[in-house]
Amino acid sequence: MLKKILAGVIIVLSFNLGFSQQAQIVEDFKPSSVNQPGKLYPQVNSEGRVRVQIAAPGANRVQLDIGGVKYDLKKDANGVWTGESAPQDEGFHYYQLNIDGASVPDPGTIYFYGAGRWGSGIEVPAHDEDIYALKEVPHGLLSEVIYFSKITQAWRRCIVYTPPGYESNPEKRYPVLYLQHGSFENETSWSRQGRANFILDNLIAENKAVPMIIVMDNGYAFKPNEPQVVTNPTRPAMVFEEVMIHEIVPMIDSRFRTIADREHRAIAGLSMGANQTMRIVMNNLDVFSAYGGFSGTANYPSPDDIDPTTFLDGKFSNGQEVNQKIKVFFLSLGTKEPNPFPGSVGAFRKMLEKQGIKYVFYESPATAHEWQTWRRSLYQFAQLIFK
Amino acid sequence: MLKKILAGVIIVLSFNLGFSQQAQIVEDFKPSSVNQPGKLYPQVNSEGRVRVQIAAPGANRVQLDIGGVKYDLKKDANGVWTGESAPQDEGFHYYQLNIDGASVPDPGTIYFYGAGRWGSGIEVPAHDEDIYALKEVPHGLLSEVIYFSKITQAWRRCIVYTPPGYESNPEKRYPVLYLQHGSFENETSWSRQGRANFILDNLIAENKAVPMIIVMDNGYAFKPNEPQVVTNPTRPAMVFEEVMIHEIVPMIDSRFRTIADREHRAIAGLSMGANQTMRIVMNNLDVFSAYGGFSGTANYPSPDDIDPTTFLDGKFSNGQEVNQKIKVFFLSLGTKEPNPFPGSVGAFRKMLEKQGIKYVFYESPATAHEWQTWRRSLYQFAQLIFK
Repeated sequence: MLKKILAGVIIVLSFNLGFSQQAQIVEDFKPSSVNQPGKLYPQVNSEGRVRVQIAAPGANRVQLDIGGVKYDLKKDANGVWTGESAPQDEGFHYYQLNIDGASVPDPGTIYFYGAGRWGSGIEVPAHDEDIYALKEVPHGLLSEVIYFSKITQAWRRCIVYTPPGYESNPEKRYPVLYLQHGSFENETSWSRQGRANFILDNLIAENKAVPMIIVMDNGYAFKPNEPQVVTNPTRPAMVFEEVMIHEIVPMIDSRFRTIADREHRAIAGLSMGANQTMRIVMNNLDVFSAYGGFSGTANYPSPDDIDPTTFLDGKFSNGQEVNQKIKVFFLSLGTKEPNPFPGSVGAFRKMLEKQGIKYVFYESPATAHEWQTWRRSLYQFAQLIFK
Repeated sequence: MLKKILAGVIIVLSFNLGFSQQAQIVEDFKPSSVNQPGKLYPQVNSEGRVRVQIAAPGANRVQLDIGGVKYDLKKDANGVWTGESAPQDEGFHYYQLNIDGASVPDPGTIYFYGAGRWGSGIEVPAHDEDIYALKEVPHGLLSEVIYFSKITQAWRRCIVYTPPGYESNPEKRYPVLYLQHGSFENETSWSRQGRANFILDNLIAENKAVPMIIVMDNGYAFKPNEPQVVTNPTRPAMVFEEVMIHEIVPMIDSRFRTIADREHRAIAGLSMGANQTMRIVMNNLDVFSAYGGFSGTANYPSPDDIDPTTFLDGKFSNGQEVNQKIKVFFLSLGTKEPNPFPGSVGAFRKMLEKQGIKYVFYESPATAHEWQTWRRSLYQFAQLIFK
């Protein structure tokens, strides 16, 4: 009880301090782990504050733009601007600098694809960062596969993780997890900001997950005669489903040593990817036997009760059949996720329960709609599948 | 003759026009092929001029910084800045924007590691771009290998190209080309800005090159008790040589299906990498049998005559032995390379000739110390080795 009260006091204090600009900032900043070689900024302190610094002697105003808030930096006598954000959640965050109205990447960091652009990222050390740390364990390979898609009449790329031992056991075949990113991200997001390869390397080293191949493709797919942007949110999911079933899965089965049956294929995604992959799994139960929906479901964004006789063409109407076909049905959410996620995922869970459909629900503590939630979700989900 | 005079007139005209800002700019600009998805700027026209555009309504001065020259942009009524460079050579160029004194990447492009940073790049269409184009031919894989180096006590990464057919011919073994970047670049440079994978995919499809593995590692290597920056230019070459011989080559031979003998190993590099790999090949003739030095040699930067009895500990003193051991000795240079490259490479060639050492010399027409020279050099060199 005392703990709860104290936590409340601390939250109120942080809130007030953040707005009064009187915060006593803890001066234990260290360079972020995803900085470019040799770059001292950006830095993060033990509170999770992000401090940036950039030389812009001729500028009028420079801001740090992170978590939807813009923080003004201060200029010193040498024209170097410095400033910091309020504390951020543990884990990875996108951000950018704003120099006199120009939104640009911070030259201090390596770049990540998210928010529809290659931009800066910061890593706030997390209490559980061990799950995605680069450790002295055997490491799988990340490979780029370039392929021409006849459906979209375009070149596409996917990133394939092959587990440790893949090259030294040329007779062995592996199950495959198809893993999808969220809105305005791409095929690189799960291996870069998601650290999916390190999560699996670590799980496999501890015998907590079965060695598996992971295929990370780009969830945006457009037919050549259609607008090449998202006009109707369910449409790219439909084209991507075609690409997944008719192009990606056969290509992966022909190019990698997979076990090419439904029992050895899982599919998961985050946010938009959770929505897409739920449609794909329910429409293709002959292809996949496990599903992970991280921070998203196919009824997004509605919190309304779902009618299983009509939702997704009645694919959930026979709960017993779903239980027979889907060996792992996994959903997750961060405890700090904003609307509409808790509402829509809640409505979906209610429907599953009404239908008697078994599922695993994981809650990521103290994280929002962000990568730390999804790293943890993959960590949990990967331990359940192919067993 | 008339052609030569005309070319001279055009050069003089371009020179004058560039400085008087009176240039008649050809208005056929198109978005660069290495722009981020959906980004309309930067653009390139048929003269090779680069036009950039960025919204920075509060800025005082915005510049395009390319090829060592800063070009002022002009602001319109909406606060959008636009401007263009003088014509650039064919091929790839690094550049950046300068906003009120801050050097930042252009948010319009994808990013490349060069000049010691992840920064913007532009692709000026080239008359011979077919050699590195993404075409409908079988494509090899690019894989990231993460390994812990005991010599440097650090995690390192290399990028490995495996040729088309590698996965479908599990019994087949392949020769290996070790391919190194230049100063302030890294292990990603040859596959991103160098397009080494596409060059080989295309050569192999046309039966002009033997299917080979290419290993692209990071030429910077420091021992844990040493400064982690380049203080003495020959020192990183020495540590990298140790890492190459004792860690990289054995790891590649154990993890990939190589033909693990000197006859089936070549090594090449550009600029600093040419210097490093020349030392490595001459010190390790039991490991490698072919060498490519693109825009660089180990006597850099001196144009002075080389004494083969002392240079590199006399490794070139017995020309006949060098001819017996090195099956392909390849050097290249762009015709527009600045000092000290023509002088130092010229002095090196003079020494080779004096020693009766056979070598192939390739000149890249109308290119300088830049990636188009090195793409062409790889295209030439890859056709000569392992035959």
